[in-house]
Amino acid sequence: MKPGQASLRCADSGAAILSLTDQSMRLSRYFLPILKENPREAEIVSHRLMLRAGMIRQQGQGSFSWLPLGKRVLDKVCRIVREEQDRAGALEILMPTIQSAELWRESGRYDDYGKEMLRIKDRQDRDMLYGPTNEEMVTEIFRAYVKSYKDLPLNLYHIQWKFRDEVRPRFGVMRSREFLMKDAYSFDLDFEGAKAAYNRMFVSYLRTFTRMGLQAIPMRADTGPIGGDLSHEFIILADTGESQVYCHRDYLALDVPGADTDFSNDAAIGDIVKTWTTPYAATDEMHDEAAWEKVATSDRVSARGIEVGHIFHFGDKYSKPMGAKVTGPDGKDHFASGGSYGIGPTRLVAAIIEASHDDNGIIWPEAVAPFDIGLINMKAGDADCDRVCDELHAAFVAVGKDVLYDDTDQRPGGKFATADLIGLPWQVIVGPRGVAAGEVEIKNRRTGERETLPIVDMKKRFGFAG
Amino acid sequence: MKPGQASLRCADSGAAILSLTDQSMRLSRYFLPILKENPREAEIVSHRLMLRAGMIRQQGQGSFSWLPLGKRVLDKVCRIVREEQDRAGALEILMPTIQSAELWRESGRYDDYGKEMLRIKDRQDRDMLYGPTNEEMVTEIFRAYVKSYKDLPLNLYHIQWKFRDEVRPRFGVMRSREFLMKDAYSFDLDFEGAKAAYNRMFVSYLRTFTRMGLQAIPMRADTGPIGGDLSHEFIILADTGESQVYCHRDYLALDVPGADTDFSNDAAIGDIVKTWTTPYAATDEMHDEAAWEKVATSDRVSARGIEVGHIFHFGDKYSKPMGAKVTGPDGKDHFASGGSYGIGPTRLVAAIIEASHDDNGIIWPEAVAPFDIGLINMKAGDADCDRVCDELHAAFVAVGKDVLYDDTDQRPGGKFATADLIGLPWQVIVGPRGVAAGEVEIKNRRTGERETLPIVDMKKRFGFAG
Repeated sequence: MKPGQASLRCADSGAAILSLTDQSMRLSRYFLPILKENPREAEIVSHRLMLRAGMIRQQGQGSFSWLPLGKRVLDKVCRIVREEQDRAGALEILMPTIQSAELWRESGRYDDYGKEMLRIKDRQDRDMLYGPTNEEMVTEIFRAYVKSYKDLPLNLYHIQWKFRDEVRPRFGVMRSREFLMKDAYSFDLDFEGAKAAYNRMFVSYLRTFTRMGLQAIPMRADTGPIGGDLSHEFIILADTGESQVYCHRDYLALDVPGADTDFSNDAAIGDIVKTWTTPYAATDEMHDEAAWEKVATSDRVSARGIEVGHIFHFGDKYSKPMGAKVTGPDGKDHFASGGSYGIGPTRLVAAIIEASHDDNGIIWPEAVAPFDIGLINMKAGDADCDRVCDELHAAFVAVGKDVLYDDTDQRPGGKFATADLIGLPWQVIVGPRGVAAGEVEIKNRRTGERETLPIVDMKKRFGFAG
Repeated sequence: MKPGQASLRCADSGAAILSLTDQSMRLSRYFLPILKENPREAEIVSHRLMLRAGMIRQQGQGSFSWLPLGKRVLDKVCRIVREEQDRAGALEILMPTIQSAELWRESGRYDDYGKEMLRIKDRQDRDMLYGPTNEEMVTEIFRAYVKSYKDLPLNLYHIQWKFRDEVRPRFGVMRSREFLMKDAYSFDLDFEGAKAAYNRMFVSYLRTFTRMGLQAIPMRADTGPIGGDLSHEFIILADTGESQVYCHRDYLALDVPGADTDFSNDAAIGDIVKTWTTPYAATDEMHDEAAWEKVATSDRVSARGIEVGHIFHFGDKYSKPMGAKVTGPDGKDHFASGGSYGIGPTRLVAAIIEASHDDNGIIWPEAVAPFDIGLINMKAGDADCDRVCDELHAAFVAVGKDVLYDDTDQRPGGKFATADLIGLPWQVIVGPRGVAAGEVEIKNRRTGERETLPIVDMKKRFGFAG
């Protein structure tokens, strides 16, 4: 925790902008409260591993603090979400967590929502609430400024804390009361435009989850309290999933659209959606036994699933009661046709762990790993080990790798166990015997494969000259 | 708002990580709801300009949404805060907004805090609150994990929404009820360690505000409801400031520590603090007429000030009632000695505008400008103007500049007014006459200086080959 690493991290950055990737850390200065015992309250593996790896701390029922290691993963997840929202043409805003009850009375949802909504009174005794979602507020923003079809399409999103006062919060951040949500809201002149906006988010979601190392399958879904007539959930398959899902095996091999996808081409985006909605896929509540029977037995995948995203088209459900109108090319007023699109970044962190772990701990996909490399000094204090570690550390940082350098005086066994538990993709192990021979060891966390390499070659492996 | 810019922005990024600086935007696809009229409710210039420039929308009393332009500035402000916290050795976490009342009963502050605290009951009728600050919660995290002086020093910070139910919220985001705060909390074994931690934050704050183009002066301050015996406010001078402040003219010329500052050197950091606390400086409430009289009249600066940061040392005020102890090198238990350190990023955005604007609008310091360059196409639709703009736009993006490209069919007068209002540091103006002569015009927003340059030279000016 000593601030000395600052000189390493920021040596010549001046006032220049450091990206997240510049952030390497010495374990001796970090706050990584590893638990040796399995916490009794944790019913599922992600909750258990997040507590054990010092990623989160419970602060109340369904309420968690994100400790430094967890915060780093959450940031990486949010960054991918944000990049893919931007790529699909959505614009980022930030709405407050506390909302006025008046807005929700306009849409009629103030009374519809039950006890899950956290209702609050301020010092003037005005009714307020902690937003469980933002359709009303964003519709208020829209109607205040947008008057013409020429300003459409419009998709505004934010990543903000939500509160839902669940009867039984559980499974750690998988089902908490206070959670982070990315919610996007599209506005279009008519159904055709709204459908195109829906499709863009659909394709954006495919890319988002794939980049996090998840295989997500879109499934027709019930619309619930958001309302509307068209909705898909994005489900990842995991043994510990909360619900039963059914899909055609074809999904497991479908191509996910690349970074060169042209989101301005409605027809091309529509074709991708068609490809991804044609084979059978349904959650338990939407399951159709008759259609399922038509899928060849060998093609049926029946498994447990975790919802990681949910998209809705709801047309004028909010624009009509709230009077959100635009003038069309016909000179007449039209209620905007809308949709909303949710992803829960806090829940996603747990879902990624559910999908990627083993008996020893978490196995992070590279794109969301809190650090790329765990550099393990087997004999901290040994001049040669320290020197080689310092050199490697500096070299990794120079090529933009995030490094967690275990420079503590813990015993090797403990260091290996911690490294496996926190699940960084690569371990680079520096010990006195290896150093004497000019060698270090690398371990791939996912495969468990270990390799002993001359230091020069190891450097090449990670993209810098020897 | 059409998503076509995605192909420009993300053409070859693959799954690579886009930084904020890659984000350029076409105005025709952006959401920038400029107001032509001065909003009547705005009493101060920053509030007026933020509303007019489409940066924020009021959602309730003391509650604001951040629209895309505002969100970009807020992000840049937060990034600088974060980088300087990290540089000084603080570690980022993220605590929830809703807290249990129990914690606050432990410290005794649940009853001390008046109506400014937003008190909430959940569905099980438990007392909760929307955190106005986090001393209690972070002390709970600390006592759960940290047992030995060997794990010190420790400084944990987060950037999270706070709520304070002010009697009279006003001045836009300058004094709102829901606001963003960076709050850091240091833990040390004894006063000496705590003082060193305090000094690191002191110096970190000097760097933070300077990087945002602000001149902030540290002044001895009252500790208020946080408690403790040592406290400084960081005040920027602005005619519209909320309070009267007094300081020695020397402050205006003091050197701000550079990026190479060694935060691990307690003595050197202490010397910087000494330099910055020796000349007279005080807010109205701490003003000492006798000391002031001793300052030469010509050295007296008496002005209006805006508080942009506040740091506190409070020793064992929280660790003692909450039982946050560590074992010292003497084998005995010691209550941790603590401090807390606040910066309000939402308020800072307004403070920057108060300090930097003219009659035509905002003048952003480069480090926090929502875009670096406003590229103005005087005749969108003209093949030559469009071609030159597209070339310049691509070239700017290639060298990492954020560009807002005004490709709309608005008249030039309106485009210039918008560009001045939103205050981007540079305007690059492309018109048919200039293009015919192979020239474009650039305008420096701060100085108002205009220059006509051959396109080739203009490109060189912004750091790329002609």
